[in-house]
Amino acid sequence: MSKRIVNCSITGSIHTPSMSPYLPITPDQIAQNAIDAANAGAASVHIHARNPENGAPSPSLDLFEEIVGKIRAKNKDVIICLTTGGGMGMTVEQRAAVIPKFKPELASMNAGSFNWGLFPVAAKIKNWKYEWEKPVLESTKGFIFQNTFADMQRMLEIMNENGTKPELECYDVGHLYNVKFMQDTGYIKGRPYLQFVLGINGANAANPYELQHMKMTADRLFGVGGYEWSAFGAGKEEYPICIQNLFLGGHVRVGMEDNLNVAKGVPAKSNADLVEKMVRLMKELDFEPATPDEAREILKK
Amino acid sequence: MSKRIVNCSITGSIHTPSMSPYLPITPDQIAQNAIDAANAGAASVHIHARNPENGAPSPSLDLFEEIVGKIRAKNKDVIICLTTGGGMGMTVEQRAAVIPKFKPELASMNAGSFNWGLFPVAAKIKNWKYEWEKPVLESTKGFIFQNTFADMQRMLEIMNENGTKPELECYDVGHLYNVKFMQDTGYIKGRPYLQFVLGINGANAANPYELQHMKMTADRLFGVGGYEWSAFGAGKEEYPICIQNLFLGGHVRVGMEDNLNVAKGVPAKSNADLVEKMVRLMKELDFEPATPDEAREILKK
Amino acid sequence: MSKRIVNCSITGSIHTPSMSPYLPITPDQIAQNAIDAANAGAASVHIHARNPENGAPSPSLDLFEEIVGKIRAKNKDVIICLTTGGGMGMTVEQRAAVIPKFKPELASMNAGSFNWGLFPVAAKIKNWKYEWEKPVLESTKGFIFQNTFADMQRMLEIMNENGTKPELECYDVGHLYNVKFMQDTGYIKGRPYLQFVLGINGANAANPYELQHMKMTADRLFGVGGYEWSAFGAGKEEYPICIQNLFLGGHVRVGMEDNLNVAKGVPAKSNADLVEKMVRLMKELDFEPATPDEAREILKK
Amino acid sequence: MSKRIVNCSITGSIHTPSMSPYLPITPDQIAQNAIDAANAGAASVHIHARNPENGAPSPSLDLFEEIVGKIRAKNKDVIICLTTGGGMGMTVEQRAAVIPKFKPELASMNAGSFNWGLFPVAAKIKNWKYEWEKPVLESTKGFIFQNTFADMQRMLEIMNENGTKPELECYDVGHLYNVKFMQDTGYIKGRPYLQFVLGINGANAANPYELQHMKMTADRLFGVGGYEWSAFGAGKEEYPICIQNLFLGGHVRVGMEDNLNVAKGVPAKSNADLVEKMVRLMKELDFEPATPDEAREILKK
Repeated sequence: MSKRIVNCSITGSIHTPSMSPYLPITPDQIAQNAIDAANAGAASVHIHARNPENGAPSPSLDLFEEIVGKIRAKNKDVIICLTTGGGMGMTVEQRAAVIPKFKPELASMNAGSFNWGLFPVAAKIKNWKYEWEKPVLESTKGFIFQNTFADMQRMLEIMNENGTKPELECYDVGHLYNVKFMQDTGYIKGRPYLQFVLGINGANAANPYELQHMKMTADRLFGVGGYEWSAFGAGKEEYPICIQNLFLGGHVRVGMEDNLNVAKGVPAKSNADLVEKMVRLMKELDFEPATPDEAREILKK
Repeated sequence: MSKRIVNCSITGSIHTPSMSPYLPITPDQIAQNAIDAANAGAASVHIHARNPENGAPSPSLDLFEEIVGKIRAKNKDVIICLTTGGGMGMTVEQRAAVIPKFKPELASMNAGSFNWGLFPVAAKIKNWKYEWEKPVLESTKGFIFQNTFADMQRMLEIMNENGTKPELECYDVGHLYNVKFMQDTGYIKGRPYLQFVLGINGANAANPYELQHMKMTADRLFGVGGYEWSAFGAGKEEYPICIQNLFLGGHVRVGMEDNLNVAKGVPAKSNADLVEKMVRLMKELDFEPATPDEAREILKK
Repeated sequence: MSKRIVNCSITGSIHTPSMSPYLPITPDQIAQNAIDAANAGAASVHIHARNPENGAPSPSLDLFEEIVGKIRAKNKDVIICLTTGGGMGMTVEQRAAVIPKFKPELASMNAGSFNWGLFPVAAKIKNWKYEWEKPVLESTKGFIFQNTFADMQRMLEIMNENGTKPELECYDVGHLYNVKFMQDTGYIKGRPYLQFVLGINGANAANPYELQHMKMTADRLFGVGGYEWSAFGAGKEEYPICIQNLFLGGHVRVGMEDNLNVAKGVPAKSNADLVEKMVRLMKELDFEPATPDEAREILKK
Repeated sequence: MSKRIVNCSITGSIHTPSMSPYLPITPDQIAQNAIDAANAGAASVHIHARNPENGAPSPSLDLFEEIVGKIRAKNKDVIICLTTGGGMGMTVEQRAAVIPKFKPELASMNAGSFNWGLFPVAAKIKNWKYEWEKPVLESTKGFIFQNTFADMQRMLEIMNENGTKPELECYDVGHLYNVKFMQDTGYIKGRPYLQFVLGINGANAANPYELQHMKMTADRLFGVGGYEWSAFGAGKEEYPICIQNLFLGGHVRVGMEDNLNVAKGVPAKSNADLVEKMVRLMKELDFEPATPDEAREILKK
């Protein structure tokens, strides 16, 4: 059986409360979702914090502390991967602050700048739960997700100093070349761990052609075996991209940060729903989810 | 004979005077380079303005007026493609101002935001001609070339109002999807004219794999025959990418904005040098440069 | 829900009785497997005959008649796709004889000549059930599956005369160009129905790269929407290739001609086992198997 | 300067005398063409023999001896690569006989069986010089170029015994997998030297997509750096494929076996014409033709 890492991105900062009643928002919800996802087979949980009052993304270190504490109270084992992507309106300094504070074994590191245009989604939502949601989504018409070379260098320095391995989020082909540049200039040590994030409006799309091209480009840049990588597609492309990535030799990421439905028209009631489906499909196709320790082993090599 | 458009980008805003003594800077130099390039076979000349005192990129409409006037005094025919990319430090408004002012038949429209990291180049230059050059190049470590969805919409509205056809500069795969999005939402009319810009540090690389993938992605998005496209690679990849793009069915761009050498270690003394080499290679390979009117016909379809 | 055709290849001529006790051999077994496969969701069953005494592939029209009759006695609906590939040692005339005799609505048409090297399999089998098996497998070291241009023209003429639609078996990239040549020269009418057969030793391999390249080549040759296609991988690559082909927009083929195991180390007890798994995976991924009439509609367009 | 091998295929067995008055036929003509090609920059000359009476391909060892002798009388240096592909109607034994007889340092080894359909060419020729030409070309409608696994094993054994390095002619993607199979089973020693032959009717086509896919497949099979390769396209695709292959990192082959025109509508008067053009293009693009000894070094590694 071929072991593969299931990453679960619990809540993110993109989806808003009006999009799903099941989106975890409070530290309790986020932690419980993470624990259940781990029990369902996720080796790694990717954590953002949200303001428990209104679900808005939050850089509060207190909230992160509460979430991490609640996860660790029930699960000593799962890999905790903290975000440094943060949410709109956060500075790079705010986004990076979790690293020295929590020294996580894994943290996301976004590998380039690009437009993140969520605004078309706003038009589809009829009933808004909170006042902040609509203007924030609409404002993305003018939004750039900022990750300059200087930002990336600073982020990686902080991670290197704190023993945190970067999970390098690549949203477009050029981001792979950015990773190579950061590796060549000494900011990335060891075998990189890439996450292909496909389907963001403003960056690369989620389809079989782009997934395979990302993989082939990474092969050319880092050499077959010279890196580990996971992939997912946003929204309904989540499982198609994950499954195709298994066949390419990679790992997968599911979770309510990326996708709110467990099947066409069927909302996921929790992150565990999404992980369970992923694991069920993996087993049908002769793959086995890696345990957290197996995942550590894979990423350490 | 298969007719192909040779675009020539005369001076741009990236290269600095210390990089080549032949970089055209004054309106006279820029205009003369454009005229000579046209005589050598370029159907379209892509124009930026520079401060004649120190060669720094300039948004001055007076400079643009002088350049365009000097070109038209000697050449009524060549397509003049004005930049809306401008240079570092210019606002989007400054960059767009040339459109209503000159109503050019063609103007560049940059199809996404990304890091434009010129800073590694600064380290290679020993003798600086002007004071502004080094700090500007080094500052690109923190630079994002800003072209948000809102910016792109505004640029395209202005072009549509002024009868200017956008030359859509695509620096990464996601930019092709941005163009498709702008087409689907009505901002781009008719068959798009794409320019694949490969080899910018921060975006996609200049190699055969990326060129072909850009082409295949465009085919999927716009349909074979549903668009026209040119391509070039930065620096020494200029001719390799141009020639491969001819074989793929596309047009080419050469010029001192993109490449300062006419052969390995041999500086181009003018843009005409670069065009002449391109045309010589095209003829050896059974291609013929399109005249400006033939180019208009190709782009109008 | 996206409807896709499930083709089931019941017994073929490649696997030998020693490879699986469940391989259908007699007309009764073959017919019952076909009926059960159809009930499980196959819209089309691909039929070869075997000598009921020893399981050797047979061109006997009497056997074909018995099989077809037994299927039709219980199932009026499923598409019956007869082989013209036959088995080793058969002449092209023997292989083609089923067409005028049964005038099937669908029949396989092999789109090129190539080495079919089964001999490495022989080394893995310890106990042989019949005497003919080992020498036949070993003899494939010198075997060419013959389908010359003249053969293909003759096959297609016969199919055209008898109202049989060819299912064009493409084992390598060049075979797609052969199909294009046969279309350009008038032998193939209407939208071609391609079957990508991947993983035969001597032809193209079964992996994500080759599958996608076959698809992209077919798009270039026939235009997106200008053809229908199914795909499968031999042996353990059956489901991976089928699932990836669904994501590419195509149909699938499973069956004991191509693959004897329903999961790693688990022999399929019948063709229905294989179809059931395919349908279960399809439904998990929001695809629906087409009924025979829906399949007819898809292939008629 | 990047050194690349220019291979020149002097006369082959495909083109017939009616196609060009300049096709070398007699031992004198073939030898002189080879000598001139070497002087023009070819490091390796690929030799077939023809009946001097009527230009028909010939397996005569006496003719080969005469040709090789005449070349060596004037040129001690150029690599002589003898064919084992022979011509239509020759047995595998006849084709292989040159190896033990001449023990060439390089010889072609065809890596699979496929239809070689020259018959459409026959329709374009109005005036036939010799009687054998038309029926032979038309007969290719039923022709398979036979290279079974057993044939390949025997050919390679003979080459291994005689210290001849195989130049592995790959006409389709599956042939690359055949080479891998022969390598895995011990018949190919050291780094393989592949020749991508594109554009034969019955096998893979000569276009940028197929060339790049052949290269990417070879990278996956043998590892980047694990092999050397040359490429060419038949007929007018000769230079396009050669030039693109240079940019991919490979070597080139030109010659009257593959292409009779030095430019559109301009017949090559000798193989040297074709080599001169190739070398001129290479130098314009910063490549340098390898000398025979440099080529030996490259192929030995």
